[in-house]
Amino acid sequence: MNETIQVLMNRKSVRVFEDREIEPEIKEAILAAAMRAPTAGNSMLYSIIDVTDQAVKDKLAETCDHQPFIAQAKMVLVFCADYHRWYRKFKLAGCDDGNVPAPELSDLILSTNDTVIAAHAACVAAESFGIGSCYIGDIIENFEIHKELFHLPAQVAPVSMLVFGYPTEQQKERKQPTRFAKSAIVFENQYRELSEDELVEMMPNDRTVAFYNRKYVSAFVKEMIRSTKEIYKNWNSKD
Amino acid sequence: MNETIQVLMNRKSVRVFEDREIEPEIKEAILAAAMRAPTAGNSMLYSIIDVTDQAVKDKLAETCDHQPFIAQAKMVLVFCADYHRWYRKFKLAGCDDGNVPAPELSDLILSTNDTVIAAHAACVAAESFGIGSCYIGDIIENFEIHKELFHLPAQVAPVSMLVFGYPTEQQKERKQPTRFAKSAIVFENQYRELSEDELVEMMPNDRTVAFYNRKYVSAFVKEMIRSTKEIYKNWNSKD
Repeated sequence: MNETIQVLMNRKSVRVFEDREIEPEIKEAILAAAMRAPTAGNSMLYSIIDVTDQAVKDKLAETCDHQPFIAQAKMVLVFCADYHRWYRKFKLAGCDDGNVPAPELSDLILSTNDTVIAAHAACVAAESFGIGSCYIGDIIENFEIHKELFHLPAQVAPVSMLVFGYPTEQQKERKQPTRFAKSAIVFENQYRELSEDELVEMMPNDRTVAFYNRKYVSAFVKEMIRSTKEIYKNWNSKD
Repeated sequence: MNETIQVLMNRKSVRVFEDREIEPEIKEAILAAAMRAPTAGNSMLYSIIDVTDQAVKDKLAETCDHQPFIAQAKMVLVFCADYHRWYRKFKLAGCDDGNVPAPELSDLILSTNDTVIAAHAACVAAESFGIGSCYIGDIIENFEIHKELFHLPAQVAPVSMLVFGYPTEQQKERKQPTRFAKSAIVFENQYRELSEDELVEMMPNDRTVAFYNRKYVSAFVKEMIRSTKEIYKNWNSKD
């Protein structure tokens, strides 16, 4: 297998970082890799907010479900789906006499594709330099706070976030979690309903109840549900 | 720069493929890389439909905005955001006495993160073997047809698609498109409104009107808007 496959296969999330800065030229290479990633019609439907202000990192460590390690990360990138610059361009160019419709859910899904493709290119690039990372799904919580914190205009939606840093020795040695069987995830030509045995094999029933309570109906999940509705309102808005 | 950075920086979309099959062990490595990609809480909120049936490829070449090169691809992967298996597991395990709420927009955004992260790991893995690829955003069109074609149950949403193949010489020699300036995409700590000059620099106004008519208000875009609402209804449904 080649070096890139090794990078992809060896990657695991890192949540404890060495107190070592990321070299500026490496950070540039990571951002360049993100911006070179595939994008629909070359239109780059995203923006990246590079959080360098410690006070903002500290705030995100609170607003993203109280995870102190976010504040310890040496690089924090917030990835926003973004139709704002195109929306302004369309109006500036006089499209439809300025009556430009607001972006829709379809645009949010397409832009989230662009955004996460760029994010994952950054993640893989970092990994290739030995820099660990962790996705923070909680960036979709507390939209009103993040909107004010980052001065987000209409048609901009924070949908993904990555924190980076060199992993500690303990983190390097941590085992990768097991993934589900390929037969449960990859289907040929048609979707396949898993059998009850396969569903139990994914996770035993007793652990499933705890998982459900923690990951599907807990307070942070309710906040995600609420906040994402606000994210969508701001997205599907003319100003 | 290391080999992985070269892979990320040299990648460009490929739409014309050599008549050469992808070796089975390479296909396995690509799928393994996808499944090893980061996923929220190790929960793998996606499914991958590996389209090997030529009749299905032919159909997708029509339903995804009439792009015949889709039918010529040697590997076609449809990436679906998927809460269906977890939804069934939650009910099977007796969570909330079986009254499990349907997944919400927040779950769709989180799952689309998982899905596109896996897709882009597959894309980068393929590229590392010299296999070209192209994202097909049009997979969000014609949901009713795709639902029937792939037997998609509730809580499953096709949100991304990649076609793969070895590039022809002409494709290898094609120049990469220029991306926007970093100053227009990456912001430090706060979102920044671009100046009108910067907006014009992205694309001249006359080209912007043509781009708008083709990419924001055309027939396929209207179909995306319509179809994505159906995708969401199916997602946010109990059965």
